[in-house]
Amino acid sequence: MRAQADGHHPELRAALHHLLGAGGKRIRPTLVLLTGNMLGADPDKLITLAAAVEMLHTATLVHDDLIDGALLRRGNPTLNARWSPASTVLTGDFIFARAAKLAAETDCLPLMRLFAETLAIIVNGELTQLFSSRDIANRENYNQRIFAKTASLFEMSARGAAMISPVDEATVETMQDYGYQVGMAFQIVDDILDFNGEQAEVGKPVGSDLLQGLITLPTLHYIEDHPDDPNIRPLLEGNYSVGQKQMNRLVQSIRKSDAISRSMNEAEKYVAQAVRALTDMPVGTERQALEDLARYIVDRRI
Amino acid sequence: MRAQADGHHPELRAALHHLLGAGGKRIRPTLVLLTGNMLGADPDKLITLAAAVEMLHTATLVHDDLIDGALLRRGNPTLNARWSPASTVLTGDFIFARAAKLAAETDCLPLMRLFAETLAIIVNGELTQLFSSRDIANRENYNQRIFAKTASLFEMSARGAAMISPVDEATVETMQDYGYQVGMAFQIVDDILDFNGEQAEVGKPVGSDLLQGLITLPTLHYIEDHPDDPNIRPLLEGNYSVGQKQMNRLVQSIRKSDAISRSMNEAEKYVAQAVRALTDMPVGTERQALEDLARYIVDRRI
Repeated sequence: MRAQADGHHPELRAALHHLLGAGGKRIRPTLVLLTGNMLGADPDKLITLAAAVEMLHTATLVHDDLIDGALLRRGNPTLNARWSPASTVLTGDFIFARAAKLAAETDCLPLMRLFAETLAIIVNGELTQLFSSRDIANRENYNQRIFAKTASLFEMSARGAAMISPVDEATVETMQDYGYQVGMAFQIVDDILDFNGEQAEVGKPVGSDLLQGLITLPTLHYIEDHPDDPNIRPLLEGNYSVGQKQMNRLVQSIRKSDAISRSMNEAEKYVAQAVRALTDMPVGTERQALEDLARYIVDRRI
Repeated sequence: MRAQADGHHPELRAALHHLLGAGGKRIRPTLVLLTGNMLGADPDKLITLAAAVEMLHTATLVHDDLIDGALLRRGNPTLNARWSPASTVLTGDFIFARAAKLAAETDCLPLMRLFAETLAIIVNGELTQLFSSRDIANRENYNQRIFAKTASLFEMSARGAAMISPVDEATVETMQDYGYQVGMAFQIVDDILDFNGEQAEVGKPVGSDLLQGLITLPTLHYIEDHPDDPNIRPLLEGNYSVGQKQMNRLVQSIRKSDAISRSMNEAEKYVAQAVRALTDMPVGTERQALEDLARYIVDRRI
C-alpha cells in the first residue's frame, strides 16, 4: 500500500504514510485474505485485492472526514486537520485511483465491475445521508444506510476473494452473503459503541451520532419502546434543533434502556447467519478464523 | 451518461443533468469514436469507452472547480456554486465510480489499468501544481504539468479506442502518440487563449493564469525574450505577491509580444506530429476527421 505513492509527489507520499501509519483494524483485508486462502486463490492476486479493498476504504474515509470536518480518526489527526481541503480532496482521489489500479491487477473483469459498483453504492449512500439525515427515522432507511456505508464493502471483500478463487458461482454467492452479514453486524455494533463505548476508546463523544441528528438502531429501538418519552417527540417530527441538554438526556436514557441489548441481539443474529454461511466451506484454520472474525465483531470494544 | 445516475439519489441525478447539460466540446469522446470507427472497434464498446472518458473528465472538473472555488464553467454555474462542498466532493466521487464502471464494461483489462493509471497521473499533476505552483518556472515543469492535466487523457482516449479494436500493438502505440500530440497542442492553445481570448468567450478574465501565479508557455517565452523586463523579476524569484497593477502590465506586455505567436508555433508543431502519426492509418472519413480535429485545435477561439 505504501508503495502506491512511489514516484509521485513527496507530499502525497507523506500523506499516504500518515494515513496508513494511523493503523485501524484492517478487518476488510483480513476478510479478503482468509476467504481467498480458504478457497485456494493465487496468493499474489489475493494480496493485491486485499490492498485494493483497504485503499478504497481509506479513500472514502479521507473524503468523509473532510465532509464531516472531523479532526481526529483512530485517535490521530485526520488529513484535513493538517492539510487544506484541496489537498485532502485530491489525496482521496489519488487513493481511489491507486485502489482501482490494484483491483485491475487482479486480472478479473467481473471483480473490476464489482469494485466500481461498490464505490458507487458507498458514495450514493453518503449523498443520501447528506440530503436526508433529517428525514423521519425508520428501519428501512437505516438498513439501506448501513448496507451502503459498511456492508457493501465487506460483501465485496468476501465476494471478490471468492471470485479470484477456483470455486463455483454458488460458493461466490455464499461468501458474498457471509460478507454482508458480517458487515451489517459490524455497523450495528459501531452504532451501539457510539452510545456505550468509552470516549477514550471510540475517540468520539458518547452519543455523537444522535447529537448530529443521525438516528441509529439503538435510537430506533428506544423510540419503539418509549413512544411517550417527551424527548423523542422532536425526533419523530424531524426536528433536531432542540437544546443540547434535551439531547444529552435522551442519550443517557438510551444508554440505560433495553435498546442497547436489543440492538446487540440483532447484531448477534447477523453474526449467527454469517457463521451458518460457512457451513459448506472447506474445514481448516481459515474457516475457523472467519468464524472467529464474525464472533469478534460483537465482542469488540472499539 | 445521463442514465448513470438512474436509481440513485434524485439530487445526484439533478447534478449529473446539470453538468452534462452544460455542454462542452466533447472533444475526448469524439477522439475515441473516430479512432475506434477508423480501426473497426465494436460500436457498443466504443460508445461505452467514449462515455467513460467524458465522465472521468467531468469528475476531475467537478473536483477542480471545488478546489479553485470557481463559480462558472463554460458560462454555467459550477456545481459548487450551487451546492455545498460536501455534495460536490461526493458527486465527483460518484462520477468517478460510474466512469470506472463504464470502463470495466469494455471488457478489456489492460484498458482498465490504463484508466486507473491515467486518473492517478491527472490527480498527481493537480497535487504537484497545488504544492509547487510557486516554484521557479521552467519548461520541464510546464511540459509535465500539461501532460498530466490534459495530454494524458487525450492519450488514453486514442490508445483506449485502439486497444478495443482488432489492431496490432504498433497501431495502438501510434494512436497513443496521436492522442498525446493533440493533447499537448490543446493545452498550449488553452494557455494562449487565456492571454488573447475575449473574456466573454473564454469565460475568465484575460491573463487569469498568471494573475493566479501560474506560469504557462506564453509567459515562459516572454521571460526568455525579455530577461530585463523589471515586471518579470519577481516571477523569476518565485515572488508573486507583487501588486495587481504590475501583474496586469505584464499580462498586457505578453499579449503584445512575440510570445503568443511563438507559443502558437509550438502548438502547430504538435499538431503536425499528430497528423504525421496518422500516415499509416486506414484512409477514409474517420482518418480525415482526425486530421481535421488536430488542425481545429490550433484554430479554435474557445
